[in-house]
Amino acid sequence: MTYAAPVEQIEFILKRVISYHDVQQTGKFSEATQETTRAVLSEAGKLAEQVLAPLNRNGDLTPARLENGKLRSSPGFAEGFAAIAEGGWVGLAADPEHGGMGLPQTLNMAVAEMMASACLSLQLNPLLTQGQIEALEHHASDELKSLYLPKLNSGEWSGTMNLTEPGAGSDVGALTARAERNEDGSYRITGQKIFITWGDSDVTSNVCHAVLARLPDGAKGTRGISLFMVPKFLPDEQGDPGVANSLKVLSLEEKMGIHGSPTCVMSYEGATGWLIGEEHKGMAAMFTMMNCARLGVGVQGVGLAERALQQAVAYASERKQMGEIIAHPDVRRMLATARAEVFAARAICLACATAIDMQRASGDADHAARAAFLTPIAKAYGTDVGCRVADTGVQVHGGMGYIEETGAAQYLRDVRITPIYEGTNGIQAMDLVGRKLADGGEAAMRLLDEILDDAKAANTDHHDLAETVWQAAETLRENTLTMIERDLPERFAGAVPFLHAFARVLGAHYHLRAAMAGGPAHVALARIYMSRVLPRYAADLAEAGAGLDDLNAIADTVLAGEFPA
Amino acid sequence: MTYAAPVEQIEFILKRVISYHDVQQTGKFSEATQETTRAVLSEAGKLAEQVLAPLNRNGDLTPARLENGKLRSSPGFAEGFAAIAEGGWVGLAADPEHGGMGLPQTLNMAVAEMMASACLSLQLNPLLTQGQIEALEHHASDELKSLYLPKLNSGEWSGTMNLTEPGAGSDVGALTARAERNEDGSYRITGQKIFITWGDSDVTSNVCHAVLARLPDGAKGTRGISLFMVPKFLPDEQGDPGVANSLKVLSLEEKMGIHGSPTCVMSYEGATGWLIGEEHKGMAAMFTMMNCARLGVGVQGVGLAERALQQAVAYASERKQMGEIIAHPDVRRMLATARAEVFAARAICLACATAIDMQRASGDADHAARAAFLTPIAKAYGTDVGCRVADTGVQVHGGMGYIEETGAAQYLRDVRITPIYEGTNGIQAMDLVGRKLADGGEAAMRLLDEILDDAKAANTDHHDLAETVWQAAETLRENTLTMIERDLPERFAGAVPFLHAFARVLGAHYHLRAAMAGGPAHVALARIYMSRVLPRYAADLAEAGAGLDDLNAIADTVLAGEFPA
Repeated sequence: MTYAAPVEQIEFILKRVISYHDVQQTGKFSEATQETTRAVLSEAGKLAEQVLAPLNRNGDLTPARLENGKLRSSPGFAEGFAAIAEGGWVGLAADPEHGGMGLPQTLNMAVAEMMASACLSLQLNPLLTQGQIEALEHHASDELKSLYLPKLNSGEWSGTMNLTEPGAGSDVGALTARAERNEDGSYRITGQKIFITWGDSDVTSNVCHAVLARLPDGAKGTRGISLFMVPKFLPDEQGDPGVANSLKVLSLEEKMGIHGSPTCVMSYEGATGWLIGEEHKGMAAMFTMMNCARLGVGVQGVGLAERALQQAVAYASERKQMGEIIAHPDVRRMLATARAEVFAARAICLACATAIDMQRASGDADHAARAAFLTPIAKAYGTDVGCRVADTGVQVHGGMGYIEETGAAQYLRDVRITPIYEGTNGIQAMDLVGRKLADGGEAAMRLLDEILDDAKAANTDHHDLAETVWQAAETLRENTLTMIERDLPERFAGAVPFLHAFARVLGAHYHLRAAMAGGPAHVALARIYMSRVLPRYAADLAEAGAGLDDLNAIADTVLAGEFPA
Repeated sequence: MTYAAPVEQIEFILKRVISYHDVQQTGKFSEATQETTRAVLSEAGKLAEQVLAPLNRNGDLTPARLENGKLRSSPGFAEGFAAIAEGGWVGLAADPEHGGMGLPQTLNMAVAEMMASACLSLQLNPLLTQGQIEALEHHASDELKSLYLPKLNSGEWSGTMNLTEPGAGSDVGALTARAERNEDGSYRITGQKIFITWGDSDVTSNVCHAVLARLPDGAKGTRGISLFMVPKFLPDEQGDPGVANSLKVLSLEEKMGIHGSPTCVMSYEGATGWLIGEEHKGMAAMFTMMNCARLGVGVQGVGLAERALQQAVAYASERKQMGEIIAHPDVRRMLATARAEVFAARAICLACATAIDMQRASGDADHAARAAFLTPIAKAYGTDVGCRVADTGVQVHGGMGYIEETGAAQYLRDVRITPIYEGTNGIQAMDLVGRKLADGGEAAMRLLDEILDDAKAANTDHHDLAETVWQAAETLRENTLTMIERDLPERFAGAVPFLHAFARVLGAHYHLRAAMAGGPAHVALARIYMSRVLPRYAADLAEAGAGLDDLNAIADTVLAGEFPA
């Protein structure tokens, strides 16, 4: 169950496959030189391999628990988090004005992948804190910024996202948490929130809750919601944790996996909070957090896939007594396909991060649109690949894979949350075919044009690969135009398979670039992808275009299993 | 978490989709009238719904455990098993000469599906006992038969299958368990076995171990292996459990799921055993057990899929506060696709059982070949659908699906063993493209001819559906002929996707039959399958034909993640 951080793979993708070079050329990220990039990746890799990876099993076997209402995290997690904080990893991409390092998100996401590989349950803590940092940077008052950002960036305090309420799932607009104005400009927050990841923490000295609630004059639906900073301990005069706030953890959920990550039911009982951003405009700030976290979750999928695959390859190579099975055609098919998918998912996630960096550095609307378009794909494809590869990992182990001691099952149980949280993959897909195609397909077409251009450029040296990619991109373009002509319910019916098709074609594109820029190993892996993964886009598009009528023709009773004779 | 036994659906498939009618027409199964069939299904359904289904969660929360070397099964399991035994369900398809009921396997498998839906961990006990009953019926001496079969059929005793040894996984020929001849005709068995399902039991008064071991003069590999009956308690003069045998359970495995099913490490320490069949020909008898169990495992997949889907549909219909989500296009897509796949997998499994019945009733080689051909497909597709639908069930529940209390996660954890045990799905696929195509494709072609004939017959009333099936079957026929021309390693490289393609086309065939014989609901469901499930066969066939060279072009180090720059 050792883990080798894929530093060289990541560097190759940054240098040769995606536009990280452009990020390095900007004024904003001029410090992200080749040397700094390498040093950061290498240091993070070591931390992940040596400090965090050994904690992963602890989290599963000794879950976080409540003791007299106080959280006790899994053995070693406090030390692991301290190492993350001390390395400055929480604030890696944060604004230097408040203690961040100001490095690109691309680099931050590469680091996040390695930490997620090492110990997903613990990595969730800095990931959510980073989301809160972004929300504060973009929306909070200077006062809130100066008070909270330095502590969050340093890892002294951690941050949470309080969105979901009992029974309200993905429908944020239905929330019932109340906020009332105090005379001193603060607010009183009352309500219950569920699914709060790291809702309490003994690895940080304060927990900063970003809580959505509705003011008395807030409109119904999502437009009347405000976002508040509600710390576990109210900061005192010196800005240190002071009096306990009126909030508590009611219970922890028992989950299929990520046992080391406490999933809390939170109760706010007239807790004191401060407005983040403007009244009634909380969703904008929450979206900032969520967008950051969405890409981060896609990256978690890649991280779990990488680790599960490493273990499966090691098992197949070393299996004792019977001899290795890695040369067996069917085992090799599973491993090679998984490796090709991990490459594709990683490239898509890092390309998305690069678009975010370019948007921030340049303020350019095209980069913003690219980032917005790629985010749901990165989240959904990254986590789908995470689940598929962790599943392959179990299968390669055979019976041993089902025994918990082996560790393969833990990856599968852990990664299974990733297609659900931060917006299910269904919601990502609807975002893609809804809002992200609302520009008439402009962002999509620009992306497809780049793919087609690359395919043309590769036509001489890699004719077959280029031809395959060109054909797939052209077909996808036609299907995208058709998709735009449909009404929303019809789009939604085809959203998930459409996202799958787009992700496969994008993955093929990055494989083609790798084949153009890399050696024979990259060409070989690209061939695997083109013949074994990409071809499924055709069936995806068939399903994406199948419409809504056939679904509505099935009665609910038939879905439940009652067929009229 | 209630469960409604799908008695009407099963009856529809028996009557209108597969050739169960032919089974009823045979002399051997003349007692399996329409009335008997209905009564059996209805009684089994009630048992599953009312007695077994409420036990499922107990098994997960309170796993079987060892107490001073003795097994303590999960709460209620003893009562549950007693109800199965009292109903005569263990011996449902067994030879009446030794206390069986002599009904068709088709009916037995339909019953098995409902019991697996209700409580997989407990159902494994009778399933494996039935496998042993078959092995004894076909291979044991009259003495062994008279002593063991009545007790196994009545459920007083249970049976196990002892195949795997530490580190020997799927390579049975590598086993090291020793057998030595005693002077009285019995044998002494020594060795360790792992993954022994229900290797001890407090729900039966004796546990009969069918153990593979090698005699001193046994050849290396699988040809030198013999099979022995090694009971936990040696039968006394009256045939009742007497002196304890020299065997014990060393430990239980901690598994991802099926916690209620004790997975034992067994130690045989000069235990007394009796030969089943002939010396050195143990594999033949073991294959009888395994073939029976393989179909049974496919059926387990269907059972878990059915239950997971029922719960997902109920959740989507009833979700409180936010309102139901069953009308949402993406949710509906997931549920409808799952329902269409459950129908297909169930029909394939029951068709396989029907071929087994016809083979037994008629002795006809064509029926035998059909049964042999369908078994790996039924096992692999049934369990794949089980995993896919249980996964969909979790996803439909959103965040609640990841919380153990909901129950959706248990189905996914439980069903995940089914693509592994009784021969991984990879092994099933290699069996299909290896031994099951060794007849030059005769069995495959006969099956494809039937599909093509049905497609022609349906061409008038259901033109589009028929045309789609015809085209797919024709393409599959061409690809099957190509597959036969390949050498074995190349076939193995494409085995799994080839099996997937064959299963999809078969599923489409049964949907077409349902559309021809049933009402508008069946036509609607067939359309879902044709447009959303079947089209994936093309990519399956592309992968099946991708060969071995591209896999071998990838270095092991690349699989592990080390790319040369």
